[in-house]
Amino acid sequence: MDYNLTPWEAKGNFDYERIIKDFGISRIDAKLLNRIEVAAKKKGLPLHHMLRRGIFFAHRDIGWFLDEFGKGNDVFLYTGRGPSGKVHLGHLVPLLFTKYLQDLFGAELYLQFTDDEKFLFKKELSLEDVRKYTEDNILDTMAIGFDLKKTKIIIDTKHAGLLYPEAIRVAKKITFSTVKASFGFDNETNIGSIFFTAMQAVPAFLPSVLKKRNIPCLIPHAVDQDPHFRVTRDILPKLGYYKPASIQCMFLPSLLGVESESKMSSSIDNGIYLSDDEKAVRKKINKYAFSGGQATVDEHRKKGGNPEVDIPYIWLTFFEEDDNKLKKIHDDYKSGKLLSGEIKKIIADKLVFILNEIKERKEKLRHKLKEIMGSLDKSF
Amino acid sequence: MDYNLTPWEAKGNFDYERIIKDFGISRIDAKLLNRIEVAAKKKGLPLHHMLRRGIFFAHRDIGWFLDEFGKGNDVFLYTGRGPSGKVHLGHLVPLLFTKYLQDLFGAELYLQFTDDEKFLFKKELSLEDVRKYTEDNILDTMAIGFDLKKTKIIIDTKHAGLLYPEAIRVAKKITFSTVKASFGFDNETNIGSIFFTAMQAVPAFLPSVLKKRNIPCLIPHAVDQDPHFRVTRDILPKLGYYKPASIQCMFLPSLLGVESESKMSSSIDNGIYLSDDEKAVRKKINKYAFSGGQATVDEHRKKGGNPEVDIPYIWLTFFEEDDNKLKKIHDDYKSGKLLSGEIKKIIADKLVFILNEIKERKEKLRHKLKEIMGSLDKSF
Repeated sequence: MDYNLTPWEAKGNFDYERIIKDFGISRIDAKLLNRIEVAAKKKGLPLHHMLRRGIFFAHRDIGWFLDEFGKGNDVFLYTGRGPSGKVHLGHLVPLLFTKYLQDLFGAELYLQFTDDEKFLFKKELSLEDVRKYTEDNILDTMAIGFDLKKTKIIIDTKHAGLLYPEAIRVAKKITFSTVKASFGFDNETNIGSIFFTAMQAVPAFLPSVLKKRNIPCLIPHAVDQDPHFRVTRDILPKLGYYKPASIQCMFLPSLLGVESESKMSSSIDNGIYLSDDEKAVRKKINKYAFSGGQATVDEHRKKGGNPEVDIPYIWLTFFEEDDNKLKKIHDDYKSGKLLSGEIKKIIADKLVFILNEIKERKEKLRHKLKEIMGSLDKSF
Repeated sequence: MDYNLTPWEAKGNFDYERIIKDFGISRIDAKLLNRIEVAAKKKGLPLHHMLRRGIFFAHRDIGWFLDEFGKGNDVFLYTGRGPSGKVHLGHLVPLLFTKYLQDLFGAELYLQFTDDEKFLFKKELSLEDVRKYTEDNILDTMAIGFDLKKTKIIIDTKHAGLLYPEAIRVAKKITFSTVKASFGFDNETNIGSIFFTAMQAVPAFLPSVLKKRNIPCLIPHAVDQDPHFRVTRDILPKLGYYKPASIQCMFLPSLLGVESESKMSSSIDNGIYLSDDEKAVRKKINKYAFSGGQATVDEHRKKGGNPEVDIPYIWLTFFEEDDNKLKKIHDDYKSGKLLSGEIKKIIADKLVFILNEIKERKEKLRHKLKEIMGSLDKSF
C-alpha cells in the first residue's frame, strides 16, 4: 500500500524503510547510538528508550551536531507545535524526547507555536480559535518539564516582528516550484500557506541572529515535518548559517490500530488528550484500543496474544521506559499468561501516571503563563 | 504597440484608454470632478491641476468615498513607496497629489514603505541596502509637507508584528492562481514575492482594526499598482471591511521622451532625484530632455515647436499649477515665440523651486526622524 506524508497529511501504510529512502534521511545506526549513550552517561542519563527501541529511527547530520557539542561549542534545540486543537498523546512523543535532549545537552530550546500555519491550512479555523488553543498548548508543553530558564517560546503571530524580516531572507531563495514539489501544493493553495515554510525555517537560525554567532541546531520532530527542514537545510548555508541537524520519530499509532489511521489526529474522538481525566483515559483504552488478544479467555490462555498488533503493547513501547518490564509484558502476553484486559490496565495505569504528573506541573505553571510567553522577548 | 504593466514592470506604449478597459477602472468624469471641486472649495482649495488636466484620470468607487466623507464620517488615505533607491520626480507625482487630498479631507494618511517588497523583488538588493534607502525616503516623503500629526509611517519589516497577523487573514483568501493572473508570476517566483500582496493589502484596513470600526479608505496611486488593490478590493469585504476606493495617475514620462521609457525609473541615470542640486537639475534637463522644437532657431521661429512631444512642456503640465501660465507657454511654444532653450529654463526653474522647498523642509525634519518613524506605534 502506498502512503501520503506531508506536514498536513499522513495517510496510508508507513513503511519507515521506504520513508528513509524517499526522504533521504539516514537510519540511526549502532555507532551513533553508542555516541549518544556516551554523551548521555556523562549527564547520568541512560540512552533514551525511544532510541533503544528505534522509535526515533532516523536523522540528518547528528554526527556533526555531536562533534560540535563534544568540542564544547554552544548548541541549541528547536522543535514546535501546531496549536490547532488540544495536545494529545501523539504530540507527547517528540516532546518527551526533546525534554531528554534538553537535559542531555543542557541546551536552550526554541519552541515554536505555529498559530499562523494552523490558521492558514485549516479552512474551518479562525485566528481567534487558534489563539485560544495556543495558550493552553504552551502550558501543556511546558508542563512536560522543560527548563523554564532555557526554553524560549515563539508564537508566530506574536513574534512576527522578529520572524518576518528573517523569513523573507529565506523566502527570497525558495521558488513556488520548490514548495510545490516539497509539499504537494497546487495553484489553488493560498499564498499564506505557500509562504509559511519560511516562517518555520526561522527558529533554526534565530539564536544565531540574536547572539550574532553561528550556533549548531538540532531539531527533534515527527518524520512528517521533514519536508520543511529539507528546504530549510538547503537555504540556511546560503544565508551563512549552519544546516540544522535533525532527528525523526515514527508516529504513535491510533488507538484503533496500526492499520487504521496511522497518525493520531486531533480530529478523531478516540484520541487521548493531555487534559483527559483518569476515567476518560481508561474508558477510551477499554473501548477503542485495538487488541492483539484472542476472542475468549480460554483461547487466549491457549494460543496467546499478538503484541505486534496490540495497541496497548505498542503504546507501552513508546511510554514504558523499563526494558525488563516491557519484555516481561511482551512474553507474558505472547504466552497467554497476560490477558487483553490486563495489558489494557497496564498501559492505562502508565498513561494516567504520566498525565497526572503533567497536569500537576501545568497547574503550578498556570500563574507563570505571561512570563513563559514572554521568554523570548527577554532574549534580545 | 503593446504594453506590459505590473507593479514591477512598465514597458511599452501606454494607451490609457486601453488601460482603463483592461484594468476595469473608471474614467474620472466631469460630474465627479465637480463633486471634488465642491468639496475642495469648502477647504479653500482649487480643483487640483492634476485633476483638471486628467493626470489623475481614473478611479474605483470615489463616488462612494465622497458620499461617506459628505456624511461627516471619518475617512483615511493610504499610499506607499517602495524604497529601492532615491526618490525621483516620478514618485513625486502621486505624493504631491496625496498631500492635496490630505488637506482636502483633513484625513489621516497611512504611508507604507514596502522594504520587504523591494528586497524580495530585486535580486541585487540586500535587506540592509533597502533599509538604508528607507530612512532617507521617509524624510523626502514627509518633506512634501504631510501633516505630521495625521500621518502614520508603516515600514513593513519594522511593523511586521502588526502587519503579518492581518496579512495572513488576507492571504488565506488568495490562491496562487489569483496572483499568477494578477501579477504574471510563475513557478520560479519566490514565495516571499508570492505572499507580498497580502502585506500591501493591510494598510487599507489597518485603521479599522486599530480603531475597531469600519473606516472608508481612499488610495491615490500610480496606475501600475492597481493589480494589488484589485485583489485587495476582492478580499476585504470577505473580512468584513469596506472595499477601499482608489484614484489612479498616469506616469511622468522619462526625460528621454514619451516613446522611450514611459515610466521614470530609479535605475536610469537621467532621472531627476529629490536630492539633485540646482546644477544637476539644469544639466540633466538641458542634456537629456526630449525637445519638440525645430533644429535651428530660425526654423523654430518659422514653424514653431510641438508641445505634445516636448518633455519640458509635458512636465510643466504635471508641475505648473497655473493654467493661464501653462496656456501661454503652450501657445508661445507652438507659435515659435518661445525657444526650446527657453522652455527648458522654465521647467528647470519650476523644479528647482519645488525641490528647494522640499530640501528645506527635509533639513528641518531630520531631527524628528525617530518621532516620524514611530508615528504608528503611538496609535495602538
